Amino acid sequence: MARVQVAPLRRTGRPLGATVRVIEIERKFLVAEPPSHLERWPATAIEQGYVALDEDGTEVRVRRRDGRTWLTVKSGAGRVRVEEEIEIEPERFERLWALTEGRRIEKTRYELDAGDGLVLELDVYAGDLEGLVVAEVEFESEEAAEGFTPPGWLGPDVTEDARYKNQRLARDGAP
Amino acid sequence: MARVQVAPLRRTGRPLGATVRVIEIERKFLVAEPPSHLERWPATAIEQGYVALDEDGTEVRVRRRDGRTWLTVKSGAGRVRVEEEIEIEPERFERLWALTEGRRIEKTRYELDAGDGLVLELDVYAGDLEGLVVAEVEFESEEAAEGFTPPGWLGPDVTEDARYKNQRLARDGAP
Repeated sequence: MARVQVAPLRRTGRPLGATVRVIEIERKFLVAEPPSHLERWPATAIEQGYVALDEDGTEVRVRRRDGRTWLTVKSGAGRVRVEEEIEIEPERFERLWALTEGRRIEKTRYELDAGDGLVLELDVYAGDLEGLVVAEVEFESEEAAEGFTPPGWLGPDVTEDARYKNQRLARDGAP
Repeated sequence: MARVQVAPLRRTGRPLGATVRVIEIERKFLVAEPPSHLERWPATAIEQGYVALDEDGTEVRVRRRDGRTWLTVKSGAGRVRVEEEIEIEPERFERLWALTEGRRIEKTRYELDAGDGLVLELDVYAGDLEGLVVAEVEFESEEAAEGFTPPGWLGPDVTEDARYKNQRLARDGAP
């Protein structure tokens, strides 16, 4: 049920000595009706576009979040696991953004307290994906992920549904 | 005969204020027998691998040259013309290099004086492309390119032959 993935060198935008290995265990849910008063939670606007999608699954994307801009190279499933985040200048972001037309995502991410020390990331999509709302919860163990009782407002579990990956949403639109 | 291409923001590894617009006018030739005593010319070892090749022609490559390491995003022909070079740490290069297996190029580039103020870049390939030698000459105008009389040791003009693009050589091998 939970998706477990090893992110070998996350947060590599920081000095190399600060890179850490992270195991992500998460579940993803559709949301038909988000909770009210979302504005009371911390929110960030995220713009993300795909510069190159290789048929082997490797993706190269640019992202703007909180006024900072990044280029990320991420290997496809089943390949050597690589995820490199490189902070880039805003001017460079703009030039690369021009290459992402038709393969973009805009969303606002709210960070909600889901109880038991859990943070629920609620992604409210805009633009072509307006109307789509997806929630992700990250867990400390597979047991915690499987034992999680979703609040009533969370809809179907789409953790394993590839159509809800950002790359697919950007390219193919809402399922 | 000559290939003319506008490189909108070349040398972007330098501080942004130092970026320059460059129009490249060049011709490319096969070389059956390189001149002797190549060692008297300045030489650099170049390793280059393709991280992602998008079907729209966009390429993302990493390169090591003179001990410095770069990631470059280059748009395909007929698209918005973008070429962004980002200098990256050697450790990051190594991790991204792992994604380029089967799509690599190794070559030594010699810079020869071709007379009349022209520089001839002679690329001597190694590894899977051992035996391939290609020369490129850059000109200041299309007239100069067309008026160029190649020295006798230069072979067929392959300026327009897509099989000799680095991306194709890396992926498909020598024609």
